[in-house]
Amino acid sequence: MSLQTAFLFDLDGTLVDSVYQHVLAWHEALTAEGIELSIWRIHRRIGMSGGLLTNMLLRETGLEIEPARIERLQRLHSEAYKRRLDEVRPLPGAAELLSFLTSARIPWAVATSGRLETANLALAKIGIDLSNVPIITRDQVRFAKPDPDLFIAAAESLGIDIAATFVVGDSVWDMLAAQRARALGIGLLSGGYGLDELERAGAYRVFDDPAHLLQHIDELGARR
Amino acid sequence: MSLQTAFLFDLDGTLVDSVYQHVLAWHEALTAEGIELSIWRIHRRIGMSGGLLTNMLLRETGLEIEPARIERLQRLHSEAYKRRLDEVRPLPGAAELLSFLTSARIPWAVATSGRLETANLALAKIGIDLSNVPIITRDQVRFAKPDPDLFIAAAESLGIDIAATFVVGDSVWDMLAAQRARALGIGLLSGGYGLDELERAGAYRVFDDPAHLLQHIDELGARR
Repeated sequence: MSLQTAFLFDLDGTLVDSVYQHVLAWHEALTAEGIELSIWRIHRRIGMSGGLLTNMLLRETGLEIEPARIERLQRLHSEAYKRRLDEVRPLPGAAELLSFLTSARIPWAVATSGRLETANLALAKIGIDLSNVPIITRDQVRFAKPDPDLFIAAAESLGIDIAATFVVGDSVWDMLAAQRARALGIGLLSGGYGLDELERAGAYRVFDDPAHLLQHIDELGARR
Repeated sequence: MSLQTAFLFDLDGTLVDSVYQHVLAWHEALTAEGIELSIWRIHRRIGMSGGLLTNMLLRETGLEIEPARIERLQRLHSEAYKRRLDEVRPLPGAAELLSFLTSARIPWAVATSGRLETANLALAKIGIDLSNVPIITRDQVRFAKPDPDLFIAAAESLGIDIAATFVVGDSVWDMLAAQRARALGIGLLSGGYGLDELERAGAYRVFDDPAHLLQHIDELGARR
């Protein structure tokens, strides 16, 4: 008897090529609030909960963490991201990988620190049928990444033991959340992190992007 | 007797926070030419010669390397970058580090794979007097990074043996060019590369950004 495998996917930087747009959208929002922060430092925070990100940035820059300011930052980011959405493309192999899993009857779900509204806009770019796919967003859990809640909820909605799943993500926050959830993390370089950053955060394997993962899918419990 | 040290600085991602704008400007230019390429792959090429970058991308995507297409791509990138120039800020500590070197009579120069026109626009952001500083751009050498020509020309214009210099840069291409020039490479994380990528490309030291380098300047032959 072999364990039933399932794949829990992060969205931004994992299935769609949207990390750099999110980074510059946060930079625009922070600048509008008079907060000067180097862009690479924003990049390294993408993928974690937006609330946690703003809290940490405000704390580091010594600014007061007022609920009104946090809400304003999140709204400014969301508006700035939507203005850049035209540039966002699916990552190579995203549609093929997900279609392969569906046809091979391997369960999969999406678990993102983003809100449902922006997640749906990005998911639509992939161009596949999502009607039977659990999409777990920040709206549905108490804590987003690096807390494990999103991935735990995704595994639950598939009815699969999380300890048997692979969590696929591009950021250190995905890998850390995967460890806390006792899932195996698969890192993708397509979000712009370095290989060793993902490995040091506990990645079990690291691939370039969804296309590269699909080439190696036989090594991950699936058979083509 | 101690060697006279000098510092040769890369510009984008090293003194000014402009890498992510360059990345999305290249993405926009490539998309306009019908070339689909993941953004992280563009990021990893920033800092090398623009001509080399376009040649390599065209070769990888199987497109013909026509001079007209390369020229068009470079023009589109330059236009798209200039539209984003308003967002570009100096990196933390850039002005302080350069002013410290000047006041300590430690020679320094700038060596960038960019063209003089865009380099001047970025340099103006730092807000320091550059009248006595050699600025070596792509226009002045046959080959840009990862060839060593830019750094060699910069050391020559300072009248310093390149083997006694530090090359400060944010990209793997700076570190590789430094090795070829027999200089010591100092990597900065402020361009968004991972620590190990810079170390594996031969960085002698790695710091976060110019402010962090300045904190450690006594370890680099300068005395505060």
